[in-house]
Amino acid sequence: MKTHTLLMPLDMHLHLRDGVMLENIAPLSAYSFSGAIIMPNLVPPVTTLDDVKKYKKRIMATVPNDYFEPYMTLFYKNYDKAFLESVVDNITAIKLYPDGATTNSDGGVSSFDIEEMRETLEAMSELDIPLCVHGETAGFVMDREAEFMSIYELLAKNFPNLKIIMEHITTKAAVDMLDKYDNLYATITVHHLLLTLDDVVGGMMMPHHFCKPIAKRPEDLDALLSVALEAHPKVMFGSDSAPHPKNKKESCGCAAGVFTAPIALQLLCEIFEQYDKLDNLQAFVSDNAQSIYGICPEFKEVVLEKRPFEVPASYSDVVPLYAGKEIGWAIQSVE
Amino acid sequence: MKTHTLLMPLDMHLHLRDGVMLENIAPLSAYSFSGAIIMPNLVPPVTTLDDVKKYKKRIMATVPNDYFEPYMTLFYKNYDKAFLESVVDNITAIKLYPDGATTNSDGGVSSFDIEEMRETLEAMSELDIPLCVHGETAGFVMDREAEFMSIYELLAKNFPNLKIIMEHITTKAAVDMLDKYDNLYATITVHHLLLTLDDVVGGMMMPHHFCKPIAKRPEDLDALLSVALEAHPKVMFGSDSAPHPKNKKESCGCAAGVFTAPIALQLLCEIFEQYDKLDNLQAFVSDNAQSIYGICPEFKEVVLEKRPFEVPASYSDVVPLYAGKEIGWAIQSVE
Repeated sequence: MKTHTLLMPLDMHLHLRDGVMLENIAPLSAYSFSGAIIMPNLVPPVTTLDDVKKYKKRIMATVPNDYFEPYMTLFYKNYDKAFLESVVDNITAIKLYPDGATTNSDGGVSSFDIEEMRETLEAMSELDIPLCVHGETAGFVMDREAEFMSIYELLAKNFPNLKIIMEHITTKAAVDMLDKYDNLYATITVHHLLLTLDDVVGGMMMPHHFCKPIAKRPEDLDALLSVALEAHPKVMFGSDSAPHPKNKKESCGCAAGVFTAPIALQLLCEIFEQYDKLDNLQAFVSDNAQSIYGICPEFKEVVLEKRPFEVPASYSDVVPLYAGKEIGWAIQSVE
Repeated sequence: MKTHTLLMPLDMHLHLRDGVMLENIAPLSAYSFSGAIIMPNLVPPVTTLDDVKKYKKRIMATVPNDYFEPYMTLFYKNYDKAFLESVVDNITAIKLYPDGATTNSDGGVSSFDIEEMRETLEAMSELDIPLCVHGETAGFVMDREAEFMSIYELLAKNFPNLKIIMEHITTKAAVDMLDKYDNLYATITVHHLLLTLDDVVGGMMMPHHFCKPIAKRPEDLDALLSVALEAHPKVMFGSDSAPHPKNKKESCGCAAGVFTAPIALQLLCEIFEQYDKLDNLQAFVSDNAQSIYGICPEFKEVVLEKRPFEVPASYSDVVPLYAGKEIGWAIQSVE
């Protein structure tokens, strides 16, 4: 049987939520990943050292028997340097949300006034704290990410020593930005390597394919595949796996988010094998992230095997991408 | 109180379905419209004289006390001239669906081979039977209508005496086609004068705004408004009101279709008044259609008044557009 081994897989963009949801889903990521960048958009968001420490403790309590590192983040506000110095050892990045751009992003940045942000972003540059950005304007849904490129340019030019991660990129416009500025990086989800808007509203309306940023055009998918499959050194895997209870997804006015954490590595094997690029997957799911973030995850070896695997209908009350469908790879062992 | 009177409103694109659904919803259109072009996409579709006569009889049975003319249509197939001569007095148009393009369109046209269609389309030209077309390719969801323009051109050029109605147009591309060929006309829905893709998937996922063709970009909406508000003489109102039971709309994999029939005139008054174009509404909802189709509907006078009106949460088990929301106009009387 064909197998493929991944070492220290990392999920550089993960939503673990809190409470019962956290307990239900954190073990799924902890099983197959060495670590993950943990999004801070709880309600209320993670904004203090105390928040960070307590949230990390709650996460670790759910995964007592796994080697799993939750790389903690703060929710972006204009923080002063003294505060950042006090938290730098407890966080790996700061996540910036435009106000209202997605789930639990209220209180995010409402205007990108560089001078107002300067103290924070210069301190982050000095302390080498990466800025992770949900890059969408409040414009027309298909244009939001492309319109945000000018803000990435503004940030990249004004803060050349700040590592800026364009999170969950979905467009050719974002791919084209990667090589324009040394300090711009990107994460890409697995669902954005599989879906276009056709899969959301092209046939029936598919709530489990609905996320923000929304899946875009075929040429955008092609651009994402091109840098992911080559494991472009500035690109990392970040699932943006975003669980919502089944009843919140399958009702009128469904919430945005695709849940992929427990099947992400399997799907990535399938995609990379399909394009004969399995050799590049290790860089995409771990090595690039280690270099960009300067992190050294605990050892974990995940062996995947090529065999039919039926995606569960749900994990607790969360419906994953491709629920009930057969995919081509499964996890054989984790050590 | 401000009022506005419409004479003989016509809905030039209406889905009445069959059975219990027909009984529940046909009276709603019959109340406020003088007549409507009735779509033939039943299961199985309306393809024979007998089908037409029986379906019309079933429709009329639901509206015994209203002046309402169901202008019947056939589902497009390649019909021979003798057949068309035998049905011409019982139909007003023939509706062409690309195979699988929308609800109940299986068995539609799978390739636009002009020579295979020539006998039918020439006979329709001679008998002055308009061809109503659902103009979407099987391409990317946002491009389907624009891609179909070359097929409209092919049809318009090859059959210059055939009246071709571009149904429920949603794009600037279609608006731009209107004046290129004398024999091209269009219907526009009320929801496509109100919604863009932002209203479908820009915030939450909104199944009651999901239809085919899907609502497009802001510049498309602007183009549609420009010809509708001017009551461009080649443009007619056609609601494409398409009822589905609430459970079919509000579940995973929801069906396409927006239900507007009972609130269409009210919403049109609101839109046209907002742009100070109420004087053009009569042409858009009736006069243009009478000229294009050469039909003389029974007299009906609908008086609308400007006052807050809360759209019902549902009509039987069908949820209308803007259910539970307040709109600015209501029907005062119908005579």
